[in-house]
Amino acid sequence: MRATVIHAARDIRVETVPDPVLSTGGDAIVRVVAACVCGSDLWPYRGVTPTRAPHRIGHEFVGVVEAVGEGVQHVAVGDFVIAPFYVCDNTCINCRNGVSTSCLHGGWWGADDRLGGFADGGQGERVRVPLADGTLVVVPGPVGDDEVPGLLALSDVMGTGHHAAVSAGVGPGDSVAVVGDGAVGLCAIIAARRLGASTIIAMSRHPQRQELARDFGATHIVAERGNVGITAVQEITGGIGADRVLECVGSKESMDQAIRSTRPGGMVGYVGAPNGGPELPVRPLFNRNVGVNGGVAPVRGYIDELLPDVRSGAIAPGRVFDLELPLRDAAAAYAAMDERRAIKVLLRP
Amino acid sequence: MRATVIHAARDIRVETVPDPVLSTGGDAIVRVVAACVCGSDLWPYRGVTPTRAPHRIGHEFVGVVEAVGEGVQHVAVGDFVIAPFYVCDNTCINCRNGVSTSCLHGGWWGADDRLGGFADGGQGERVRVPLADGTLVVVPGPVGDDEVPGLLALSDVMGTGHHAAVSAGVGPGDSVAVVGDGAVGLCAIIAARRLGASTIIAMSRHPQRQELARDFGATHIVAERGNVGITAVQEITGGIGADRVLECVGSKESMDQAIRSTRPGGMVGYVGAPNGGPELPVRPLFNRNVGVNGGVAPVRGYIDELLPDVRSGAIAPGRVFDLELPLRDAAAAYAAMDERRAIKVLLRP
Repeated sequence: MRATVIHAARDIRVETVPDPVLSTGGDAIVRVVAACVCGSDLWPYRGVTPTRAPHRIGHEFVGVVEAVGEGVQHVAVGDFVIAPFYVCDNTCINCRNGVSTSCLHGGWWGADDRLGGFADGGQGERVRVPLADGTLVVVPGPVGDDEVPGLLALSDVMGTGHHAAVSAGVGPGDSVAVVGDGAVGLCAIIAARRLGASTIIAMSRHPQRQELARDFGATHIVAERGNVGITAVQEITGGIGADRVLECVGSKESMDQAIRSTRPGGMVGYVGAPNGGPELPVRPLFNRNVGVNGGVAPVRGYIDELLPDVRSGAIAPGRVFDLELPLRDAAAAYAAMDERRAIKVLLRP
Repeated sequence: MRATVIHAARDIRVETVPDPVLSTGGDAIVRVVAACVCGSDLWPYRGVTPTRAPHRIGHEFVGVVEAVGEGVQHVAVGDFVIAPFYVCDNTCINCRNGVSTSCLHGGWWGADDRLGGFADGGQGERVRVPLADGTLVVVPGPVGDDEVPGLLALSDVMGTGHHAAVSAGVGPGDSVAVVGDGAVGLCAIIAARRLGASTIIAMSRHPQRQELARDFGATHIVAERGNVGITAVQEITGGIGADRVLECVGSKESMDQAIRSTRPGGMVGYVGAPNGGPELPVRPLFNRNVGVNGGVAPVRGYIDELLPDVRSGAIAPGRVFDLELPLRDAAAAYAAMDERRAIKVLLRP
């Protein structure tokens, strides 16, 4: 089959690789219907994290089950399934505590894990899914092709934006600022509105993304950054800062922006992978009672809650996909996201 | 009158200073019935924070109102009052948000603030209290002398321990570990039990404090620190760490202990003033979805909630005072706490 392999910074290739086979009794083989490129895939693409040897890449996909191991009970051949960006059993104590990204038996796509050998990356034609009963979520009934982008968003970005909002404790009537206008930041706006926030400030400098942010529920746009941006947030929020700030980038600058845009006693929900840092400055947090909560989003547990709203059209996270390419053009997909010509690229095998 | 002045590290003197006088219409003059020495007073005492010029010290006291300004409405001459460790109006947006330590118009004891000049330190015979209506809490009815320690604990340590528990989100059935066996840590145990925690682990190496911790509700004692201590906490909590960890020290080591003792998805509530740092390590927080919340405890807002339980005897935070001295022996009080001969010293003018 064909699958995407990263060889080095800016060297993405679609190559012929071995077809996946059932390895454990708990596996499924999924034919990928759609995959996509994640903002975190850009770290190795840009060379921020080194690529020491060629490896498969991609961790977001939806597809149709083609085969299952003899122990699989909740997933059947022919099912349309959503895969979260990691593997989990959904039964261990950490999964039951809502932190399936810390599953005691889980793993990651594209890794040679303990669970029967290599788990393919998502940007390919097929994937071996270990712990299929825990990992995969079945979408009931016929799935229309127009539904695919929204369902694919549940594999990562929509659940991750939702996790930022949940971690920050967003509730009815809150003022919320969102730092980052990538796919996760835009989904965080959807999540904040869905959870009842009355003021939603999108911090964005890009006209096209500002427009989508407004469609998703942003009530204000702040294009400025640094102290000017913080002042703008304070002016919108009665002089004190936002109740909840959702950090959806992961850089030192964005986390600083988030912390200083939060009102005393407020909370930062953060989901942007902090690449190699930064450390959190404790004094500005302590002195103003600003909390920090979040991390690698346990999206598996959120799919059940969010899926009905996606299917009903109440929320439309699939709109973050503003470019669709065939899998063979994966390199072009990376370039488009790297150069910010696309918010998020959907790949069709 | 007589009041305590710090001149330099380990140089505490009780001196004759000017009597306080009403300065603004919102002031009260309070005759101090009891004051105490705070763990944070030990930072300048030990020279960790420099004392550049002699200044008054102390920020915890209870007393009787001797005079009020013409604008004071909620406090009257003769009232027994509790003062939190800071001044606040209790009406601004930050106070209404529950963060009165960030009061837009507040200030600190022993400081020459905007509110009518010098606000005396608490370790003296009398104190001018600015913003008396917002700052002071009246204790209704006659106050027995045996009630004084418990009421005095509400000026800081009981509310601060409670803030650690509230910030960490302690609720019924939770497992809670408390890092720090000073007065605040011991009060955090009281708070965790009061909020319904079912497992309470006191991390303490001191037999006398372990005993008090058990009396306050600790179900387990862990004397070890570092990795051994973390393993001990995990063994008590099903292998994963405590749901909530209350950091009541403020050192780099104690915060590290707290973060690594928390289960994935859990929360650290921290109230130990981080003296000059440390920065928080973001990766161990992000990867395991461990949140950090807390800060300078807004105890003013907690007094109303905690006072009935103190008066009824349901909680007995006054037991943290294990040494009582006359005000003239303030220097001995500091030495006793510095050398950990006393948990907390009560001073009577």
